[in-house]
Amino acid sequence: MKAVVIHAAKDLRIEEREAESLGPGQVEVAVGAGGICGSDLHYYNHGGFGTVRVREPMILGHEVAGTVRALGEGVVGLAIGDRVAVSPSRPCNACEYCLKGQQNHCLNMRFYGSAMPMPHIQGAFSQHLVAEQWQCHKIAKGVSIEEAAMAEPFAVALHAVARSGALTGKRVLVSGCGPIGALAIIAARAHGAREIVATDVMDAVLDKALAIGADRAINVASHPEALSAYAANKGYFDVQFEASGNERAVRFGLEALKPRATLVQLGLGGDVSIPQNMIVSKEIEMKGTFRFHEEFGLAVDLINQRRVDLKPLLTATFPLEDVVEAFKVAGDRSKSMKIHLAF
Amino acid sequence: MKAVVIHAAKDLRIEEREAESLGPGQVEVAVGAGGICGSDLHYYNHGGFGTVRVREPMILGHEVAGTVRALGEGVVGLAIGDRVAVSPSRPCNACEYCLKGQQNHCLNMRFYGSAMPMPHIQGAFSQHLVAEQWQCHKIAKGVSIEEAAMAEPFAVALHAVARSGALTGKRVLVSGCGPIGALAIIAARAHGAREIVATDVMDAVLDKALAIGADRAINVASHPEALSAYAANKGYFDVQFEASGNERAVRFGLEALKPRATLVQLGLGGDVSIPQNMIVSKEIEMKGTFRFHEEFGLAVDLINQRRVDLKPLLTATFPLEDVVEAFKVAGDRSKSMKIHLAF
Amino acid sequence: MKAVVIHAAKDLRIEEREAESLGPGQVEVAVGAGGICGSDLHYYNHGGFGTVRVREPMILGHEVAGTVRALGEGVVGLAIGDRVAVSPSRPCNACEYCLKGQQNHCLNMRFYGSAMPMPHIQGAFSQHLVAEQWQCHKIAKGVSIEEAAMAEPFAVALHAVARSGALTGKRVLVSGCGPIGALAIIAARAHGAREIVATDVMDAVLDKALAIGADRAINVASHPEALSAYAANKGYFDVQFEASGNERAVRFGLEALKPRATLVQLGLGGDVSIPQNMIVSKEIEMKGTFRFHEEFGLAVDLINQRRVDLKPLLTATFPLEDVVEAFKVAGDRSKSMKIHLAF
Amino acid sequence: MKAVVIHAAKDLRIEEREAESLGPGQVEVAVGAGGICGSDLHYYNHGGFGTVRVREPMILGHEVAGTVRALGEGVVGLAIGDRVAVSPSRPCNACEYCLKGQQNHCLNMRFYGSAMPMPHIQGAFSQHLVAEQWQCHKIAKGVSIEEAAMAEPFAVALHAVARSGALTGKRVLVSGCGPIGALAIIAARAHGAREIVATDVMDAVLDKALAIGADRAINVASHPEALSAYAANKGYFDVQFEASGNERAVRFGLEALKPRATLVQLGLGGDVSIPQNMIVSKEIEMKGTFRFHEEFGLAVDLINQRRVDLKPLLTATFPLEDVVEAFKVAGDRSKSMKIHLAF
Repeated sequence: MKAVVIHAAKDLRIEEREAESLGPGQVEVAVGAGGICGSDLHYYNHGGFGTVRVREPMILGHEVAGTVRALGEGVVGLAIGDRVAVSPSRPCNACEYCLKGQQNHCLNMRFYGSAMPMPHIQGAFSQHLVAEQWQCHKIAKGVSIEEAAMAEPFAVALHAVARSGALTGKRVLVSGCGPIGALAIIAARAHGAREIVATDVMDAVLDKALAIGADRAINVASHPEALSAYAANKGYFDVQFEASGNERAVRFGLEALKPRATLVQLGLGGDVSIPQNMIVSKEIEMKGTFRFHEEFGLAVDLINQRRVDLKPLLTATFPLEDVVEAFKVAGDRSKSMKIHLAF
Repeated sequence: MKAVVIHAAKDLRIEEREAESLGPGQVEVAVGAGGICGSDLHYYNHGGFGTVRVREPMILGHEVAGTVRALGEGVVGLAIGDRVAVSPSRPCNACEYCLKGQQNHCLNMRFYGSAMPMPHIQGAFSQHLVAEQWQCHKIAKGVSIEEAAMAEPFAVALHAVARSGALTGKRVLVSGCGPIGALAIIAARAHGAREIVATDVMDAVLDKALAIGADRAINVASHPEALSAYAANKGYFDVQFEASGNERAVRFGLEALKPRATLVQLGLGGDVSIPQNMIVSKEIEMKGTFRFHEEFGLAVDLINQRRVDLKPLLTATFPLEDVVEAFKVAGDRSKSMKIHLAF
Repeated sequence: MKAVVIHAAKDLRIEEREAESLGPGQVEVAVGAGGICGSDLHYYNHGGFGTVRVREPMILGHEVAGTVRALGEGVVGLAIGDRVAVSPSRPCNACEYCLKGQQNHCLNMRFYGSAMPMPHIQGAFSQHLVAEQWQCHKIAKGVSIEEAAMAEPFAVALHAVARSGALTGKRVLVSGCGPIGALAIIAARAHGAREIVATDVMDAVLDKALAIGADRAINVASHPEALSAYAANKGYFDVQFEASGNERAVRFGLEALKPRATLVQLGLGGDVSIPQNMIVSKEIEMKGTFRFHEEFGLAVDLINQRRVDLKPLLTATFPLEDVVEAFKVAGDRSKSMKIHLAF
Repeated sequence: MKAVVIHAAKDLRIEEREAESLGPGQVEVAVGAGGICGSDLHYYNHGGFGTVRVREPMILGHEVAGTVRALGEGVVGLAIGDRVAVSPSRPCNACEYCLKGQQNHCLNMRFYGSAMPMPHIQGAFSQHLVAEQWQCHKIAKGVSIEEAAMAEPFAVALHAVARSGALTGKRVLVSGCGPIGALAIIAARAHGAREIVATDVMDAVLDKALAIGADRAINVASHPEALSAYAANKGYFDVQFEASGNERAVRFGLEALKPRATLVQLGLGGDVSIPQNMIVSKEIEMKGTFRFHEEFGLAVDLINQRRVDLKPLLTATFPLEDVVEAFKVAGDRSKSMKIHLAF
């Protein structure tokens, strides 16, 4: 079978790999669609991020859905031909964090396509994938395989919402409206946010933000004063989902947030200089949010029940052989939101 | 009456001021002791901090206790001769934040000795002070006026503890063990912290931290590896009280904190560069804490009931006329923890 | 002007009352629609509830909306002819509870149409009403006056949701699907409940529950086993909104709730016998929810933005002169959900 | 070896049992002290409680400490001769509740001396006990074996405190001051409760409550009005630890609690009739608390560090052969707080 393998920055290859064997409780999935994520792009463009570097060939990808091809011994509730979204979150369920219900901090996590541990954890951009049954969430009739593959990034956004606390009556700022910011808008809207203001530096991205549910969009490159106006009376927003990783976005946010507001930081940036003064005097709560675990099932449920519509986020699907082109387009946010590979 | 007035950086004078008149519901207090706070020192040494600058003469001071000299009409429950700690927190009780129970974010706060608004809010370093009755908390027999004057900084520490959430079973790191860090140790211990590790860069300060209740003290200048050891298995501490304002203390903390731990930031520093990566991947919760309100009464209660012993924090008391010397000594943390003025 | 006045149980009269005079900051509203609430029915049918009894004639009603007729001095932002929903919640904003942001527990609350204090607080079922500007929330074009009058009971449901904590990913049981239970379904759905199961003892009521958003409806009179099935593995639901006031509904709920689940109790019943054993061994959290305060504005916002559709809950509107008939119909839940009076 | 075996109500025997064999990772403990708990008394006096009945002979006991006699393969960090408190909480660490960090709700819990499942889980009142290493917590020099045996009921109280939320600044009511109520007083005090009022119906019990840290004790049988006085202005207490299981104690509490206060229900009673009205109108939060898990280690830590003193709670120690007499005395709360067996 074919797989998408990163060897080093800018060295991405389609390679033949042997399919894994199917054990008890496992499911073999013919991967149908795979979304290219920001971390995949980091591996492709920079060979990693921070201290995490590609040190051996690694199959990329963790946003996948497909069709069940074979069932291991003891698998019930799934049938060959069922379409499933596959969760890449594979905690050990035995370490101290798993036993506190913090599976996303598992000491032995085997998240698809991660170069953190050595040997690296191979990813899911391959034609066939052998997964545990509990990773496989059946999708409803009428839901496309592409939508199902978006369950993964949507789970990230849902985890961010879970980290933010109840959104009932809350005014929400979303800074950075690429795929994760856009999904945060959808997730916040689905959980009752009273008002959502989206910011970015590109008008095209902001148009999409409005289309999927933001109440207002502000281009902070061309109209920073529109955001600053919210700083009156110590601030306006109760919650910020910061998905840009940009220092200015954090600073703008700190001014526009109310005292005791929550800033949920998504994404993996580097060092950021923040005005500690403002965090102290406004008693801001800045919270990191990292991946997800049980939210994957929730994401599939919400997609299946048509409570959310993720289709507008898909820009284009590329055939497997055009994977390098797909990664180039995915890296150009002026052109694309979410790019998929078809296997 | 005499008052301690700041005119500009390094220009601190004892001046004669007219005593305020006593209105209904008010109490006249002969100030007995006044503690010099870090913000007083900022005004003295730098003429302010951040964008807050001394723009007109201002009486300093907000950590005071004294003896009731006269009672305004309608005051009940207090008698002349009673000794009281006086809360400097004077919210409007009418703005949107007050009506949410967030008095420390009052839009019209008149906190003693603050150059934030113009005209400045005059402070409490004067021989006589006219205060509202609800500012005055009676102290118990046997509690000294100096201890009572420490109710104010202790209230700051108690508010930090309130911000941290329940400390039941929690392992706590306190970085920076000047007066506020030391009081955080005492406050955390009194609220059940399971283990307290204190860090600073001066051994004398750390000796005091051990004396008042820390389980272990680490000099991070000479033994940084002792703190780094706590970073194993993704971290050890559940809560950090960061009272140094130092960037390295934040970075050390982020490594030694467990996933989902809380970092409570006290004190008013400037810009700090933080590794956003770590906040995200460990899902750290960084929370500012600012002043206090209802914790002032709690501080007096705990002192009165002898649940805490703040006496070890008092280094020396200077007579009013030696105020400049007092400020110099207070600014030298190798020599002093808390310095008081006697009026 | 005419007003609906209760004198004693079953003694409801339309009486002529003098209109109040309009003071500064106040608004005179020509009441358009008034919803009959369960507490109004209690006054009508039983002369009160619990220890709260009608001891003097009292205008009933607190679910009203209307059209601005006159503006007091200093009112800005409203114009004659504007249509507004009027909040009946009038806290003192000065007592200890108001200053903690718990306005619904105000010691001096003057909630419309309440016989708790003496003299009673007159209600809003009158042709003209003089209200403070901050009680009046403008409704959007296209929203009917009847929908606007439902902002009040919807605010009750929103407060219940606020009390329940974040509903992200939560499975919800709603017991008792009269107006308040039905509104709880709508409110829970709008705030992201993952699944909603509704129970009642009348099929017609359950049909409505399904129509407005419940995923499943169970008649616990005819099919108690359908609910009991959820008790397997220590329970299924994370949150119960108990709007029946019925002891069996509490008991059924305790069995079907998961350990650490939250049971939010709405409505004002009498004594209820509960199995304490189960609350203890499953560590259930049973929380009362009482009226609302800031949720009134939120209710109007959600109605204005068309995030919720309350129209299906309105059964019929009666002219003022048929008020006694209206109360009779409102009291028969086999026939009616929400009954309105037109003024 | 000898063990204390319950056959039916009032049928308690000392029987010879074969010692268990020692497996890898396990520790053999010579039991030194065993505390008689309320549930042991229920088995002895009534043959069970609620639907939980003794259906086969079962060794009683779950509050034990002793001395290490032998170490299984792979046990490190413990030595023969070490004294340990042994946690009776043995969750499966694999079910859905364990993987949420809710080990006390484990679907396959094997808590010592429990007749809930069939076959029953044998208890720890035997001369030798084979336990997993992680159950065994080393006690410090100078801590007696009797104190160590109280780690278990103290863990129950600590879990109740954990359930109550932060006690910083809180006024606490403890109703029912038998062993669990008394330990709740100690636990609440150690975690910063501002004020503790204890109630009971026996003066001797209340004297002990005062001795161990309550600020005030009220005999609600002879002086109910002293408690009722706290009902003014909607109530006084922020938290109630209800350890009596008595309906009147719940009712008294609901009156004396402030709006939004928390009532933590300990102990396993039967049906209780509560005024739902009051739970609703005061928005009380009634929370069950059940056993403990990670709090066992915390209990041992606090005992080892001398942060708490549990010694005053021990009334008497009986030799194993007087077990029936011990149970009789333990059941008479006019005479005894905590009764121990020596093995």
